[in-house]
Parts: sequence; C-alpha cells; structure tokens
Amino acid sequence: MTIPESSPHKRLKAAVLVAGSWGTALASVLASNGHEVVMWTRGQAQADEIREQHTNGKYLPGAQLPSGLTATTNMDEALRDAQLVLFAAPSSAMRQVAAAAAPMVARDAVVIHATKGFEIDTLERMSHVLAEELGRPQQEIVVLSGPSHAEEVVKKLPTTVVVASEAEGFAEKAQDALINSDFRVYTNRDVTGVEVAGAIKNIIALGTGLSDGLGFGDNAKAALITRGLAEIGRLGAAMGANMMTFAGLAGVGDLVVTCTSPHSRNWRAGSMLASGLSLDEVLHRMGMVVEGVRTTRSAKALAARYGVEMPITDQLYEVLFQGKTPREAVESLMMRDRTNEL
Amino acid sequence: MTIPESSPHKRLKAAVLVAGSWGTALASVLASNGHEVVMWTRGQAQADEIREQHTNGKYLPGAQLPSGLTATTNMDEALRDAQLVLFAAPSSAMRQVAAAAAPMVARDAVVIHATKGFEIDTLERMSHVLAEELGRPQQEIVVLSGPSHAEEVVKKLPTTVVVASEAEGFAEKAQDALINSDFRVYTNRDVTGVEVAGAIKNIIALGTGLSDGLGFGDNAKAALITRGLAEIGRLGAAMGANMMTFAGLAGVGDLVVTCTSPHSRNWRAGSMLASGLSLDEVLHRMGMVVEGVRTTRSAKALAARYGVEMPITDQLYEVLFQGKTPREAVESLMMRDRTNEL
Repeated sequence: MTIPESSPHKRLKAAVLVAGSWGTALASVLASNGHEVVMWTRGQAQADEIREQHTNGKYLPGAQLPSGLTATTNMDEALRDAQLVLFAAPSSAMRQVAAAAAPMVARDAVVIHATKGFEIDTLERMSHVLAEELGRPQQEIVVLSGPSHAEEVVKKLPTTVVVASEAEGFAEKAQDALINSDFRVYTNRDVTGVEVAGAIKNIIALGTGLSDGLGFGDNAKAALITRGLAEIGRLGAAMGANMMTFAGLAGVGDLVVTCTSPHSRNWRAGSMLASGLSLDEVLHRMGMVVEGVRTTRSAKALAARYGVEMPITDQLYEVLFQGKTPREAVESLMMRDRTNEL
Repeated sequence: MTIPESSPHKRLKAAVLVAGSWGTALASVLASNGHEVVMWTRGQAQADEIREQHTNGKYLPGAQLPSGLTATTNMDEALRDAQLVLFAAPSSAMRQVAAAAAPMVARDAVVIHATKGFEIDTLERMSHVLAEELGRPQQEIVVLSGPSHAEEVVKKLPTTVVVASEAEGFAEKAQDALINSDFRVYTNRDVTGVEVAGAIKNIIALGTGLSDGLGFGDNAKAALITRGLAEIGRLGAAMGANMMTFAGLAGVGDLVVTCTSPHSRNWRAGSMLASGLSLDEVLHRMGMVVEGVRTTRSAKALAARYGVEMPITDQLYEVLFQGKTPREAVESLMMRDRTNEL
C-alpha cells in the first residue's frame, strides 16, 4: 500500500537476535523504516548471505531483504550502542541467547521479544526469562505478537500486530520504531495475555492441521478454533490475563491466521502427523522449530498447575507423546455430551 | 465418523421451508435421524427432483440426499401434523413464507429458523418476524446457527451448531431432533446474540473476500476478522446480547468459517467485486441470494439507530452502493491512527 506515514522515524541502531524467519522479517521492517539494523546469528554462512546477497534462503526463500540490513556472528558488534534489541530466538534457546547478550545490552535499550512459547523446564513466559537474564524489570520487556506470517511481512503485505509492556512508555517506543503504512502496530498493557495467546495458539494449529490432514472439513476446523480460543482464555484467565486480549489481534487474530494458512509451520506439522508420519519424521522434514510441539508439554504442565481444563492440549499430548492416533484424537474432540454452550 | 449416538431419536414429522442449500442440508440431517421430513418449495421441478432423484442440483450439486427426504409445492401437505417446522428462507422472503405457513403450523410445533439476516425495512431479527407472523411468543422461537457449510453437512463431515431459544425447553427439543454423531448441537439462551452474529458475519465475509481478491494476504484477512468480531460485539452489546455468544460457535466459529472457506457465497461475492465486476454482475453470476449485501444496508441503519461504530460495514456500504473502489475501502480499513488496541 502507498499511504504515507505522517511521522518520520527517528533513526535508531537496532539489533535482532536470531535470524530465523520471524526475526528476519522484523529486522526488515526496522531497516525499511530507516533504522540501522544488525542481525546476529551463529551461522557464518547465513550472516554472509544476509550481508552480501540480502537473502535468507533457508528461512525466507525467494524474499529480497532491504539492502540496509546487515548481519554478523559477533554479538558485541550487533549489540554495541543498540537502542533497540529484538529477541526472536526459539523459546528453547531464549535463555541462552539472552544470557550471552546480557553484558552488552545497554541499560536504556528498548528490549522486545517476538517468541511464542514457554520455557520448557520452568514453564516461564519469555518476558520473565528475558528479565531474569538481562537483569531488568519484567514490566519493561515488550512482547510483539499478532497475525503475521513472516513471508507476508517481507512482501510488505498489510499486517497488524500488538506490542505490549506492563510499564508505560516501552511498548510505545517499540511502536514508534516499527510502525509504517504496511505494518500497523497497536499497543496493549497485557503482556501475560499476549504471551499466553501466542504460545497456546500453536497447539490449536497442530490440532487443526490434524483435522485437515484427516479430511475433516472447514466446519470441524472452525469448531476446533472456537474451542481453542476458549482453551486459551481459560489458561489466560488463571494466569491473570485480561480476557479482552484474546478477542484481539494477539488472540483470535493470530489463532485464525495460524490455523487456516498454509504458511503455518504448526498447521503443516499437524497435517503431516495426520498422514501417518511419526513425530520424529515430521520434525526432520520440517527442518525448523515447531514451537507447538514443545508448547504442548508446557501447556499440559501449566493446565495441571493452574487447574484448568485444556482438552485440545490433552489430545495433542496423547498424539505427540503417547501414541494415540490422530483420528482418535480429533474424534474425541468433536464428540462431547450434549450440553449448553456457555 | 462412526461413534454411535446413545439416545435414539423419537420419530417426528418435520417440515422444512424452503429448499435452498442450508434448508436442504438441515432436512437431510433430520431425515438421517429417522424423522419423516417434507420440504416445501415453490418450484415444481425442484420438488420433483428432490422426491424422485434425491438430489438438489442447483443448490447442492453432486450431493446425494437421504432417500426418506421428500418435497412438495403444497404447503398444507408439508405442514400438516408437523411437530417441527424449520424455516430456512432468505431473510427477504421470511415474512411472506411465514405468513403463508401460519394457518397450518400447529400450536405445539417446535419452530426453528436458520436464516442469517435482518428484515430490510423493519430491521427486525428473524425470530421477531416469525413470532409476529405465526402469532406465538418470540421467546419460543428457536434460532440455529454456527460454523456449518451446507456442502459439508450433507457429506456428514463433523459439524457443530448452536440452537438458542429464550424460553427453556424449545432449543432443547430442537437439539434432540437434530443431534447425531456427525452433527453436534449445543444449546444457548441468547437468541439476540446468535442472530446478530449470524447476520453481521456475512458483511465481514464480503470484506475478507474483497481483501483476498485484491491480493492482500492472510495477515490482512486475520486483521479484518478480528475487527469484524469487535464490530459484531459492539452492535450485539447495544442490542442486548450476551458477549460470551460472540466467543462461541455462532460468533467466532461462524465468522472464521465464512471468511476463510471457498464455500462461502459472501466471501466469493467479495472476491468477485475486487476483480472489478459490478454488484449487479456479481449477483447475476452468483445466481443465489448473497445475504451480506442486504445485511450491509440493514446493519448501516442499525449502527445509526444504536449509535455504534461499524467501520467494516461503513466501507462495504460505500463499495456496494456508492461506487467506492474495493482497494480504497480495504486500505481505509487497514489504516488507522496509532492507538492502544483495547
């Protein structure tokens, strides 16, 4: 779209860790806004490719990245003088990446994360992990979420996201840096709700992938999405979230896009499971992190801790880790006693 | 699916008016449950086709209907002794069909409707129109809604719906008659919410059809669905609905299936408009009622009456009736001032 953005961006130095598809897409948004953006990745070949060819072929095949976007394997170079630091590591790597970055992150840098999942051992949300490792108040950590396939963001297709921080001013700084005419950024104060919704929707996407892979139709998928939203809401309420968040972009918006789009890794993993592949085979073929698999373990434990009913999570857990067939699982989900809806 | 239904159905005589795709699909569910089902239609050829060939080629091409399902052009024959009467006429024809049926509908028959829209002149909900014409309390009228493409229901793909009546006992009778292992029926008391959600979602589907037709992606579509849900909620709240309904099957469930499935007529009409066809051309090519077009007029008037903001409805109104281009409309919807989400 070609609508001019009224307020020009104040040029910042920004660091993005790591260079997966979502990190790369967000780095591209920042670079398009005129910021000086350095991505950090462990892989020298990947860093060279991004810096020299302006592509990231493994994660965003076919996409041309902004020429101003650069990359390095040297964390100090990426983080030095960075006024904005965006973490987009897989949830399982977040603590390690944050710990390595901590000594180099400036005290007054805006810290944003865009990772959807819980830490597997502690069941902590990502904002908590970052706050611990970076030694700063959790209220200042910004989470970014919403219906946003990376593949569309790098093509500048219209996208809306939410940035949330509990303390005022931090989400607003992230909004200022990221917003443009194609990438609309809204603020929110409910970090818990945004993080819980972003994590659990990957489980629901695995479930709708199973359903679609088995040949059930759009009616069944919509039923799963509806129940999935209820399941997210129950856990979120128990963890102290604002229920309105689940009706918004980070809730229903992200849930819908993840459950209905072929871009979604978790949906694809579910549909591959339905075709009879084992979990190991699916993960091998995907070649990328499928957050929903780990999140199913975390959510199962969180459901027990908070005493909430999570039937889709329960069924996925049995399929992924206990040998239940996808068909039995989806049929269990579609069959319930006749009952009042509310 | 092959899960046995524990409670067998008490055999009823049921009448279904008229024989569009949704009426035919619901009549098929009733017939599969062992009820004696007669459909009423104005078209002799259509009635003959349903009765003799067990197909309804115009509305459900390729579908084989249950052999016990019959049809007639004689309303008295359809309604005589019917213990359950299901109205699935287009919203614009509902009053006329109900008025014609009224003298023949038994006082103790369960009356259900499955029509999504408002009466264009009065802006009344369908349960009100039926109550007036049939001379019975509106609280006893049952509305059926939810994520349920007719094409999937006749194939016995798993489907979930809601039946709602304000007075207790009526929705429950509808549930008893309709439920089976493939067609799961939940009850609800919020007739207003179910009717408002079912009507307005067709407008949102037109909007997502426009967006998809213009080549915008799944991120944009998810944003429209999220805002559409908020728009439904605002009107519903003003009209006295229970907000929980919008998080359920008749709300988010039906909205998702209508906005993301190629089966949806309203979505298809929107995508055809985006390709540059005029409204008249689109309606001519569809050859079936596109409820969202009329509903856009009604909702525009209802928004004014109740003083609620309905930006998607406003934009669709300008596209449908005032010559605004689809691109301008979708861009207006995607651009908003930077703001807090909630």
